[in-house]
Amino acid sequence: MKFIFQAREKEIEVPAGYTVLQAAAAAGMPVEGNCGGNGTCGRCRVKLLSAGGGDLSPGWTLACRSPVAEGLVVEVPDPGDLLLRGKAGTGHWGPAAAVDSPVDKVFVQLEPPSLKDQTADLERLLTGMGKERAGVDPSVLADLPGTLRRAQFKVTATLIENNLAAVEEGDTTARKYGLAVDIGTTTLAVYLLDLNSGELLAAASCSNTQKIYGADVISRIQHAQTAEGLGQLREMALNALNGSIARLLKEQRIAATEIVEAVVVGNTTMAHLFLGIDPTHLANAPFTPAFRNSLATSAGQLGLSMHPRGRVVVLPNIAGYVGSDTVGVMLATRIHRQEGICLAVDIGTNGEVVLAGRGRILTCSTAAGPAFEGSHIRHGMRAAAGAIEAVKIDEDVSLKVIGDAAPRGICGSGLIDVVAEMLKSGLIESSGRFASPEEAGGSRNPPVWSRLRRSGEGREFVVAPGSISATGEDIVITQKDLRELQLAKGALLAGIRLLLREMGTETGSIGRIFLAGTFGNYINRESAVAIGLLPAVPPEIIVPVGNAAGEGAMLALVSREERNLAAALARKAEHLELSARMDFQEDFVEALSFPEGPGSFRSGIGN
Amino acid sequence: MKFIFQAREKEIEVPAGYTVLQAAAAAGMPVEGNCGGNGTCGRCRVKLLSAGGGDLSPGWTLACRSPVAEGLVVEVPDPGDLLLRGKAGTGHWGPAAAVDSPVDKVFVQLEPPSLKDQTADLERLLTGMGKERAGVDPSVLADLPGTLRRAQFKVTATLIENNLAAVEEGDTTARKYGLAVDIGTTTLAVYLLDLNSGELLAAASCSNTQKIYGADVISRIQHAQTAEGLGQLREMALNALNGSIARLLKEQRIAATEIVEAVVVGNTTMAHLFLGIDPTHLANAPFTPAFRNSLATSAGQLGLSMHPRGRVVVLPNIAGYVGSDTVGVMLATRIHRQEGICLAVDIGTNGEVVLAGRGRILTCSTAAGPAFEGSHIRHGMRAAAGAIEAVKIDEDVSLKVIGDAAPRGICGSGLIDVVAEMLKSGLIESSGRFASPEEAGGSRNPPVWSRLRRSGEGREFVVAPGSISATGEDIVITQKDLRELQLAKGALLAGIRLLLREMGTETGSIGRIFLAGTFGNYINRESAVAIGLLPAVPPEIIVPVGNAAGEGAMLALVSREERNLAAALARKAEHLELSARMDFQEDFVEALSFPEGPGSFRSGIGN
Repeated sequence: MKFIFQAREKEIEVPAGYTVLQAAAAAGMPVEGNCGGNGTCGRCRVKLLSAGGGDLSPGWTLACRSPVAEGLVVEVPDPGDLLLRGKAGTGHWGPAAAVDSPVDKVFVQLEPPSLKDQTADLERLLTGMGKERAGVDPSVLADLPGTLRRAQFKVTATLIENNLAAVEEGDTTARKYGLAVDIGTTTLAVYLLDLNSGELLAAASCSNTQKIYGADVISRIQHAQTAEGLGQLREMALNALNGSIARLLKEQRIAATEIVEAVVVGNTTMAHLFLGIDPTHLANAPFTPAFRNSLATSAGQLGLSMHPRGRVVVLPNIAGYVGSDTVGVMLATRIHRQEGICLAVDIGTNGEVVLAGRGRILTCSTAAGPAFEGSHIRHGMRAAAGAIEAVKIDEDVSLKVIGDAAPRGICGSGLIDVVAEMLKSGLIESSGRFASPEEAGGSRNPPVWSRLRRSGEGREFVVAPGSISATGEDIVITQKDLRELQLAKGALLAGIRLLLREMGTETGSIGRIFLAGTFGNYINRESAVAIGLLPAVPPEIIVPVGNAAGEGAMLALVSREERNLAAALARKAEHLELSARMDFQEDFVEALSFPEGPGSFRSGIGN
Repeated sequence: MKFIFQAREKEIEVPAGYTVLQAAAAAGMPVEGNCGGNGTCGRCRVKLLSAGGGDLSPGWTLACRSPVAEGLVVEVPDPGDLLLRGKAGTGHWGPAAAVDSPVDKVFVQLEPPSLKDQTADLERLLTGMGKERAGVDPSVLADLPGTLRRAQFKVTATLIENNLAAVEEGDTTARKYGLAVDIGTTTLAVYLLDLNSGELLAAASCSNTQKIYGADVISRIQHAQTAEGLGQLREMALNALNGSIARLLKEQRIAATEIVEAVVVGNTTMAHLFLGIDPTHLANAPFTPAFRNSLATSAGQLGLSMHPRGRVVVLPNIAGYVGSDTVGVMLATRIHRQEGICLAVDIGTNGEVVLAGRGRILTCSTAAGPAFEGSHIRHGMRAAAGAIEAVKIDEDVSLKVIGDAAPRGICGSGLIDVVAEMLKSGLIESSGRFASPEEAGGSRNPPVWSRLRRSGEGREFVVAPGSISATGEDIVITQKDLRELQLAKGALLAGIRLLLREMGTETGSIGRIFLAGTFGNYINRESAVAIGLLPAVPPEIIVPVGNAAGEGAMLALVSREERNLAAALARKAEHLELSARMDFQEDFVEALSFPEGPGSFRSGIGN
């Protein structure tokens, strides 16, 4: 079966039984979608230009519900790369203090062999490098004789920890590049670095197309248990990564073979899938990962677009739900060296929490859910162009939209903002229920309160009316959206409280909170405290650190010492399994409510 | 294009442009052939049962000259495995004195994980084995979680030098197998060993199907320089090896995944081709190999039929024309520990010579040519059923034929014998010219002298008349055959003399000669001295040692110490490059003649 995506006009063949959603991902033109192909989120709408020989008719359809057919022509919007806001989301990155990559490139000029010196090519090379032996896979030697002679025995050897990875003609020591990769459940980020200078050359990110098998890790693990599921998931992420890498390389005029090492972080499930390791037992108690320590293999074996004998290192994880991305956060925030008690929170599809102090590092993971990444929220979306990222409610509602575009939906930071503002305006009770406009009466600000209305599924608040939205539809926050947010923030806060108790301390002792995650930079700190996503601390101690996981991967990429530190931090971390703790449930129920602060409805009456 | 080989009725598809010879090899049913597809040796005769859509007509044709065509049906004799005469050609092998394989299989019983002990699977396994860390490729972990749980955490781990290669359910420590492989230019030998006991379980050998690209290493190197040549040669040998391995495994009821290590020896060109390394520069001075020291890689990467993460080790070579097979011979003969001066000669397609004594090990290589393996000899053949392996000339000519069959040709040992006997009977002059029956007159033994006749290409001697041969054709030794033999034995003898001179000694000081090579066991020692293949020593000091190269591979396979010894011997060996020595040419010319001994024509007159 073949069909064509018109944005880039690509014709592909896929096996019978594929849906258009799957085919689009296979074609490298992923369609949005959050419900795992259940036909419930409605995000994967595509336009059939020609229905081909199948049962479909031309027009709009859900990609996840449409089987492919011979001759199908489908129009999908070209998603391109997700715009990471700011400089690839890593405002903090500069050339690392001590660049010390474990990859060495050494230029040597050798004497050519003669009948009096028949020394073999490899041994001649190693001797020239002052080495008696090195690890050498025979594949390195395949073209070594030709390379040496074409280059008149002036060559550059690439050594990865005393393993000979490549031999290139001439002096190529100045060109030594590496990748830091952050595999998120929702978003993949790739950073291209110069391994000589430590400089970040470029970054790209894209959607994790595994999403078509479900927005959360549990759905992915379930899919991995189907016949070809693990392979499909592995390939989805791999193809997406390779697409981003290809764009970075083209932009920077660097060849894939010049990329000699990659350091990868991700949550434990993503790391398993990336390495092709059965993740089944992560889904059920006792949530045991297949590995904890750092693993390394060759890029060729994994299929990553770099030198096939380049090394791919996956940093260590801590537990089934605290992965190497959290180790990256620890590394980037120097959390073990902070004075006093320090908290780091990485809010992605899951919420990982690290509490450091008193000589200990405690971790836990909470099922934050993908609400902050736009999933399970009626008009939620990723932090891409058209997303409402900040909201202010005064006389009326004012919005800040990414890319200064007409709003298409609301992203995590916007969601937190609008809920905080609604709480302040009394539109929401601390229980999470929408207030009743009847109760509020005429004293309330009419332009704002008029946005609160009833729908078939309870009340909802119009954030942006169809008259200004990109789609012509009203963008709303529903009662269900509020419940979703409460579950997410409640779990996170309960986790934080439990770690504090385990360390024998309390909220007041926290000296600093690092807020990691793609959207950490854009959260309004007051709003985060106001909705109780974070404990009640002075907002100025909250430090957004952007994609600290990716930054940790970059540090580990350019420095042996940082890589050793990552291993040490992972070993030192004590993981608290929340599901094994009775006290967590109590904390959780208590944390579901929104804080009753000066901005909340009842106390706000007097203002 | 498809066609069928009737012996096993196999239908295969090959690219257009293939010859039947190439297709037969690709089908794993190689046809004999020695001239590299030049259509000159006539060995590759096959019967076309149906000519299909091509230009050929049914009947006999040369496989190397017949292009394949759609629908072709070809009958080829099933070559089966070459019968190695004797117990797989290694009469000397018994369980090695100290079996100490570098592969460990360890059975462990682990505590299952719980919420209180969430240790990752890998770290649980390693701890159970008393190891803090081990080299672990992520592919080992792909099914580790499932394996552990299916086996209720009772598993056997395979470690190759502290690298985790496999984890199997239950206790499989008793099943640990390895392969010793000898890749000869003409013949491939595979030995299957029990790595616990060191026992040789079975052996197989087959033709090196690379032969279709030429009988000697130079032709192979030339073919390797064509567009897909290197890959084709690699695959030829690999497929042949995998075929032999499959038969051994089936016979012994062993699974491919139970084979965890292989040690490979071969001449330097064969080792390059096997590893996919460009051999170009072996063909021209200064004959530089790409590598000298031992190399190791995974079976999966090479495509060898064993555990994909099993290790394949290629023993070190010494020079461009003295390979790891010679190191195997040194190992098997303990040549470095022999008293006095000791010579080892491995006569294959090339002739490698080792002279040990006075604390030194000297090596050289001579272009013996494939004469002793049946090539370039009119009726030469491998030592398989139907080959004349011994000849006696008294009243008449009496023959010994392998397999007690009707003679089909003459193998190396038979060739040496018949020439020695002809020398003794005065049928050949020491110059290598056939005697003239006219000169000899009526005094000579009529039944024997009547076999000496003229043909279009000079004189020839009928070893077996068509009346008793399998083909109905006379089996003859031609004047050209004699010249071929003279070149081969002359080069070998000159090499030996040069090594003796380099060591400052002479023939008389040689205490022992080890005669290695597939046919070493079957050479008549008196005949070898009589034709001057070996120096004039008392025949009783000549010790045939069979396939000592293969035996060396077996020793290295079952013992770390032997493997270290192989490395030490290779390092210690001093290689003499004959082409760089002026004195070699003089020795060579002198050594071309046959010795004038009591059995030779002139001195024989008086007897």
